[in-house]
Amino acid sequence: MAKSQTAHKNPAAIEKPGEMIEWLAGFGATPSGGVTRLLYTAPWLEAQRALRDLMAAKGLSVCFDEVGNLYGRRMGTVQPDSVILTGSHIDTVIEGGKFDGAYGIVASLLAIDRLFKKHGPPLKTIEVVSLAEEEGSRFPLAFWGSGWITGRYSLEMAEDLYDREGVSLHDAMLSAGFGKELQREKRCVPEAFVEIHVEQGIVLQKKKKDIGIVSDIVGQRRYAVRIKGESNHAGTTPMSMRKDAVKIMAELILLVTGQAEKYSDLVATVGKISAKPNMSNVIAGEVECTLDVRHPDSAVLDCMEWIIREFVQKQFQCGVEMKVEEWMRVEPVKLDEALGQIACRLADRETIHYEKMISGAGHDAQVFASYCPAMLMFVPSENGISHSPEEWTAEDELEKGIEMMMLQLYKLAYE
Amino acid sequence: MAKSQTAHKNPAAIEKPGEMIEWLAGFGATPSGGVTRLLYTAPWLEAQRALRDLMAAKGLSVCFDEVGNLYGRRMGTVQPDSVILTGSHIDTVIEGGKFDGAYGIVASLLAIDRLFKKHGPPLKTIEVVSLAEEEGSRFPLAFWGSGWITGRYSLEMAEDLYDREGVSLHDAMLSAGFGKELQREKRCVPEAFVEIHVEQGIVLQKKKKDIGIVSDIVGQRRYAVRIKGESNHAGTTPMSMRKDAVKIMAELILLVTGQAEKYSDLVATVGKISAKPNMSNVIAGEVECTLDVRHPDSAVLDCMEWIIREFVQKQFQCGVEMKVEEWMRVEPVKLDEALGQIACRLADRETIHYEKMISGAGHDAQVFASYCPAMLMFVPSENGISHSPEEWTAEDELEKGIEMMMLQLYKLAYE
Repeated sequence: MAKSQTAHKNPAAIEKPGEMIEWLAGFGATPSGGVTRLLYTAPWLEAQRALRDLMAAKGLSVCFDEVGNLYGRRMGTVQPDSVILTGSHIDTVIEGGKFDGAYGIVASLLAIDRLFKKHGPPLKTIEVVSLAEEEGSRFPLAFWGSGWITGRYSLEMAEDLYDREGVSLHDAMLSAGFGKELQREKRCVPEAFVEIHVEQGIVLQKKKKDIGIVSDIVGQRRYAVRIKGESNHAGTTPMSMRKDAVKIMAELILLVTGQAEKYSDLVATVGKISAKPNMSNVIAGEVECTLDVRHPDSAVLDCMEWIIREFVQKQFQCGVEMKVEEWMRVEPVKLDEALGQIACRLADRETIHYEKMISGAGHDAQVFASYCPAMLMFVPSENGISHSPEEWTAEDELEKGIEMMMLQLYKLAYE
Repeated sequence: MAKSQTAHKNPAAIEKPGEMIEWLAGFGATPSGGVTRLLYTAPWLEAQRALRDLMAAKGLSVCFDEVGNLYGRRMGTVQPDSVILTGSHIDTVIEGGKFDGAYGIVASLLAIDRLFKKHGPPLKTIEVVSLAEEEGSRFPLAFWGSGWITGRYSLEMAEDLYDREGVSLHDAMLSAGFGKELQREKRCVPEAFVEIHVEQGIVLQKKKKDIGIVSDIVGQRRYAVRIKGESNHAGTTPMSMRKDAVKIMAELILLVTGQAEKYSDLVATVGKISAKPNMSNVIAGEVECTLDVRHPDSAVLDCMEWIIREFVQKQFQCGVEMKVEEWMRVEPVKLDEALGQIACRLADRETIHYEKMISGAGHDAQVFASYCPAMLMFVPSENGISHSPEEWTAEDELEKGIEMMMLQLYKLAYE
């Protein structure tokens, strides 16, 4: 429905962000109202091509790079080699929402367009980018788009990464028409990368703020926890003779969440749990659970790890074997302070209600941060829902984000 | 293997309890070394018939009752109408062990036989019973054998109870040759019911005791708990904005186990847990778990219930919906004190190491307790393992139980 409704419309005529997001959501639309647009699949390619045509229709000079990142460039009149890059990612998770990633592209595109209509060409070059991939939903790798631009990833890597059907990233890339070295002009490092994204959290909504200005992206450590106690009869085993794995798990949960409650910005989540034999009248002999800990400072994460190790040691002394294996570590990232301060001053000046915050989720801006000054802004997500067809941000909130993006881009490229 | 090994042997020649248990385990033996002998199935019927023949071979007068309980009677010479009933159940759980129930029948049978060989016929009648059913493994009903004898259950009930294949208890009974009113002499209420069973717990083993003399069988309350919090992003949702169902479950677990640790004989178990959506990077919005609480005094169980209700109320005030539904309640049972005291004195006299204890699991003796003076004794279970092919009690421990049974039956029927 969404696709056929919007396919007939001329996308270049769309002025409202919500409408443009709907149009983009037509590529990979699912029956449940969500979007599945995995890297290098047909809907992904259709979306990138449609965006290319739209950018061209808006007067931008367009090109793809080796991995399928799409750029739309408005040349600067005074300093054409100074580039302000802005955008977000075009891919989605399976059955994802319409806003995640897409909004950042739409907001950048509309902001550039409106600035041009109002002020003409910028002094410095502004470029919108529709990044190929961020989610890690098809291949066991995230940030493929920004990772390629910033030199973190290479084309060679693509040969050893496979999707669930056994297709390599390399072959998928080739079949979408990418993956080859291009003869193109050398691109310079941008002066700034500016991303806007839906929050995927409930902070802005709860605090009734329009814009989040992100200072840090948290570090993440994810652990697989395995507790081996002793399975026994729930009736005949006195409390003092138990090694109840479920009870030990409960202690761990309260230990880590209690610790997280003490430190601002620290979060700890045990989201996945399973017990064996998982019967109502049998003491669980074994529990497996996950532990997800995030904070913008590695030292705080180290501290949490130390506390967990102490706990494991204590259990070991009681004859309970417990393993805590880290299976994912992402270091915290500080975004550019100067860019953030500019945003705060602009928001203050225009009385836009903003919140200085950290991001608890990963975003392309964190990859750019090691390459050029990078910043990230949020608009609210209704009820914090994300990665779901229920994902929603209201039109006035989307507009406020574009207003903020225009202020920032004007400051960086027009003044 | 077990079956063919023992089928050739004349069971009446077996003197050792372990050997007789092995012989009995041949009926319904499973490849894993366990036993599946569900009510009214072919292995069950074969076992009862083989036991009938064995009892007859040992000189007992045998009969079945309406529901398939099997009796072997040695008439008293002075007070034949005063009956001391002893025995346990012949059915097992699916893939159960060889000792649960079977040992009680074997111990009673061997004790009666050895007493007769040593002292001749008793003054009062001694009767061994192989009870049809206790486990509740085939039909949604436990204690069918003792329930029938004591008048708790009637034949009419059998028409409305079905097994997993849709066979009614009534039809299953008929097909095994039972379920009809019998023309038989009216049986009188026994003077005592004496049961011996494997502990199915680790108390005797840990305390290095030979015999458990049970004073009470615990009351049981089982609850289904459902916690409805709020599912959210594990990274972007600050601790203060969470309604983490897993964390609330952890608090409940520590609340109830902490309470149980404070009261002797109180046990609390959360054995079965599940979380939704059960993903490592998503705060669980929903948790379901079970809660099993047992104690010999209803007041203590009431107190636990009160504490749980308070907790639910507290969650409700925080906007978390929590349901705790009781789906099983078994009232505590006091066994006959005088019979227990006799056993303690006899054990003292013979320097048998015993432990006065409560039973955390249900047994036939608790059904008889409302009908006649009833007692229950335990022998150790290696590592407390039960309802498993791993169930094990060593030969000398089985023998100690028979010694104790002989002392008790001598006291009740010979003096």
